[in-house]
Amino acid sequence: MSASSILVVGSLAYDDIRTPVASRDSVLGVAASYFAMASALYAPVRLVGVVGDDFRESDVARLAKRGVDMSGLERRRGGSFRWRGTYDFALDTAETINTDLGVFGGWRPQIPAAFADSKVIFLANIDPEIQLATLQQMSAPTLVALDTMNYWIEHSRDALLRVIGKVGLVSINEGEVRQLVGKLNVARAAREILALGPRAVVVKRGEHGATLYLKDATFWAPAYPIEEVVDPTGAGDTFAGGMLGYLASQPRIDDAALRRAVLHGSVCASFAVERFSVDGIEAATRADVERRHDALLDLIRP
Amino acid sequence: MSASSILVVGSLAYDDIRTPVASRDSVLGVAASYFAMASALYAPVRLVGVVGDDFRESDVARLAKRGVDMSGLERRRGGSFRWRGTYDFALDTAETINTDLGVFGGWRPQIPAAFADSKVIFLANIDPEIQLATLQQMSAPTLVALDTMNYWIEHSRDALLRVIGKVGLVSINEGEVRQLVGKLNVARAAREILALGPRAVVVKRGEHGATLYLKDATFWAPAYPIEEVVDPTGAGDTFAGGMLGYLASQPRIDDAALRRAVLHGSVCASFAVERFSVDGIEAATRADVERRHDALLDLIRP
Repeated sequence: MSASSILVVGSLAYDDIRTPVASRDSVLGVAASYFAMASALYAPVRLVGVVGDDFRESDVARLAKRGVDMSGLERRRGGSFRWRGTYDFALDTAETINTDLGVFGGWRPQIPAAFADSKVIFLANIDPEIQLATLQQMSAPTLVALDTMNYWIEHSRDALLRVIGKVGLVSINEGEVRQLVGKLNVARAAREILALGPRAVVVKRGEHGATLYLKDATFWAPAYPIEEVVDPTGAGDTFAGGMLGYLASQPRIDDAALRRAVLHGSVCASFAVERFSVDGIEAATRADVERRHDALLDLIRP
Repeated sequence: MSASSILVVGSLAYDDIRTPVASRDSVLGVAASYFAMASALYAPVRLVGVVGDDFRESDVARLAKRGVDMSGLERRRGGSFRWRGTYDFALDTAETINTDLGVFGGWRPQIPAAFADSKVIFLANIDPEIQLATLQQMSAPTLVALDTMNYWIEHSRDALLRVIGKVGLVSINEGEVRQLVGKLNVARAAREILALGPRAVVVKRGEHGATLYLKDATFWAPAYPIEEVVDPTGAGDTFAGGMLGYLASQPRIDDAALRRAVLHGSVCASFAVERFSVDGIEAATRADVERRHDALLDLIRP
């Protein structure tokens, strides 16, 4: 059984991270990086992103070593996207200290001709107009998923709703889905998103797991319990990587596969949060994933 | 198969509840009331509590109609326990506007001789010294469970830890277990409680469900998804009622039964929050419970 090809389009950043316990400067940050490190455990991954002069060759090499096709990486004059953030003691929400978009600002992804036939597409968090323009460059995707964030919900809600109408899967966190729909009840909010077109909405609940909303069913996945969260940055992108990676490895993307995929998302995210930057998911092997996947199944065995 | 008898010892209050949507005054409040309404769906329930002159005969009759043995209800000169609270828009945490313990203050439960042989005991939220004194009046319980609250964790931590060492199951919410152990990580905190003696710790996570921690396993139960929460008061006590009710109905209280019991707790709590006071759980039948139980199983079917 051969896996479908995955395309991820998104940022590659350098982050300065502060937590109450430790700090790291200029570490590889969201979003395509985390996604690719996870999804490449399951299927061939192609990455389209942009970086500046300051981007380390060694970071490109790390992704290439994981098997990620980095030939779609644009290098431009200027600085890479940089984000500086601080987490409080609960390690759940980040306070942004500074964002410098660098060459990522105003970037319009050009999908290389060799990537246009990719089957599973992840449109990482970026201006929804750009997500839409990117999507139009794809020839015949079987599943397109998108992530977003509160900024676009506030500033580009109409464009975001338009692109949501064209994708198969929306990956969104609890606060964002409430904000997007203007409803406190997450199940209701997710149903409204489904009504726009997607076949699946995955609501990420952090340490509480994730919920998959399908037209006729709901699946409640636990988070893999981590006793020592070090850095939650990139958890959502890694989640999406595990989920789409698993789906790309399956012969059919049906509802049953979607349910199982959410568990793989949970597992991959659990590796990401155990270390700073992509270090945790980079160190995870497919065997590690299978072990945690079995443990998750046991967590929900009635 | 005949069910074991359940004894609940705890308060019967009158609540004034404010939510952003509606209000109710002098409605039957926590804790033994909610617990009994749920557990009586599964097994014979005996209630020990205290009320004042103002307590309505009709509220006693509602519980008796459910099959609850009310012969252990003490009536004293004075007012019943009264609580006035307000919920914010998220309907998760209550702000206490006023508490008047009334005849509940200083009450020392006397367990009627006819109740001393009860098999499954629920020590609802009350001074842990009183929980301990109550426990000593029981002849041969097979399972004792307790609930508590932040007040006792702050003011009677040592006594609380002592009584925890003597019970089989601790039902506690996420914030409380963190506070009790002084650890942010819930899984770690729950393990520390298990080390004190109980065979099971159930951490209630509100709309995120509940987690059962056993010595060698963990079970992650979803909440039954409610699209319109009306009043979360008593959800935890109703949860405990469903859980212990189910356990009392089983031939053996083993780990498998404990896992299934948490699902019954979730289901019963879902009925409680759909209406003010005990109205929601009072209206639920065993058939209603079974339908939601099946739906919960479907929610976690991988």
